[in-house]
Amino acid sequence: MTDLTGATAMSALRSLIAEREWAQFHSPENLAKSIVIEAGELLEEFQWSPDFDVDRVRLELADVLTYCYALADRLGVDPDAIILEKLEITRAKYPAETSRGRSAKYDQL
Amino acid sequence: MTDLTGATAMSALRSLIAEREWAQFHSPENLAKSIVIEAGELLEEFQWSPDFDVDRVRLELADVLTYCYALADRLGVDPDAIILEKLEITRAKYPAETSRGRSAKYDQL
Amino acid sequence: MTDLTGATAMSALRSLIAEREWAQFHSPENLAKSIVIEAGELLEEFQWSPDFDVDRVRLELADVLTYCYALADRLGVDPDAIILEKLEITRAKYPAETSRGRSAKYDQL
Amino acid sequence: MTDLTGATAMSALRSLIAEREWAQFHSPENLAKSIVIEAGELLEEFQWSPDFDVDRVRLELADVLTYCYALADRLGVDPDAIILEKLEITRAKYPAETSRGRSAKYDQL
Repeated sequence: MTDLTGATAMSALRSLIAEREWAQFHSPENLAKSIVIEAGELLEEFQWSPDFDVDRVRLELADVLTYCYALADRLGVDPDAIILEKLEITRAKYPAETSRGRSAKYDQL
Repeated sequence: MTDLTGATAMSALRSLIAEREWAQFHSPENLAKSIVIEAGELLEEFQWSPDFDVDRVRLELADVLTYCYALADRLGVDPDAIILEKLEITRAKYPAETSRGRSAKYDQL
Repeated sequence: MTDLTGATAMSALRSLIAEREWAQFHSPENLAKSIVIEAGELLEEFQWSPDFDVDRVRLELADVLTYCYALADRLGVDPDAIILEKLEITRAKYPAETSRGRSAKYDQL
Repeated sequence: MTDLTGATAMSALRSLIAEREWAQFHSPENLAKSIVIEAGELLEEFQWSPDFDVDRVRLELADVLTYCYALADRLGVDPDAIILEKLEITRAKYPAETSRGRSAKYDQL
């Protein structure tokens, strides 16, 4: 078994998938399904109340992130790079001056 | 406006949220809702077919990742660290020997 | 316990909720969260393959429907009536002539 | 065009699908994806606040219900019948005596 000490999340994920031969199940479509399935489990931690168990939420969030990283890798992109790319778009859509302290959608600002 | 050249995704996200005073909306519950909402939009790219537009998928995936990072930051944890934490659990649950090439849930192996 | 022989789904649901004093948890927001949580569980039946177990899918679909009925009742509307209302809108947006055999969104037709 | 006056929701839905030849897209898997996609749009009405616009929520709920009906029909089952079937299971899992006024999962009661 691979020693993961010091491994990055992406390299550890790749090892886990490779060792189990799971790439065959990881079509982009199946990964997109998996992301929303895990996101639903994360939301279940808040189903009846805004109160939450931080340990459970952390692990459910990790599941969502893991499938997001798997899909990013499958698309050949870096998670941080695409977040930065999208943040630039968000900055342009929601100028700080007009969107400060407002949760409205940009087309309603 | 902050110059983001060379910024990490997390620091760029923090700046964007701070400049717009959006932290007030970012309760863990609201972020969990946002993650599943964005995950649904990602899945919409695959609604009727496994074929997809890689540029659209990349941007939708970035939206899911962005809210995941915001929730991680709100919980005071690092996205990569919690992925690594959870991968260790997954390694134990799904030994490579018994789960190789199988998509079954660990309790069905 | 209420005898449900011959009861409609809505009246049986109302009895179940009333007997357990669950209405206090059923804010529209919590029911909307519940609907997407259960929808994720339904999708899990198709996570890695389009093949499915019809008995499991039927019960997961019933869970989604049950929370949809609970939300409809909370809003004071009838499930069938709002489906009919929305179908009229869909008919106008997607004329049979231009949308026949096409899955594209109406704004792309 | 079919005159829908007095039609049931299910028969109106069947006509709409048949006239547009959409059944070819309605595999159970695609309908399950569609249900969760629409459920995400419903939740979006509550993304930042429990306050909501009843007209928008009603139409988003109708979208979820419509795909639920389409999947039920595809499985050859009646929506009300499967709700009643599942309510019986829920009654047994959550006896009124032990679950009254509690939102906990049945295995935590």
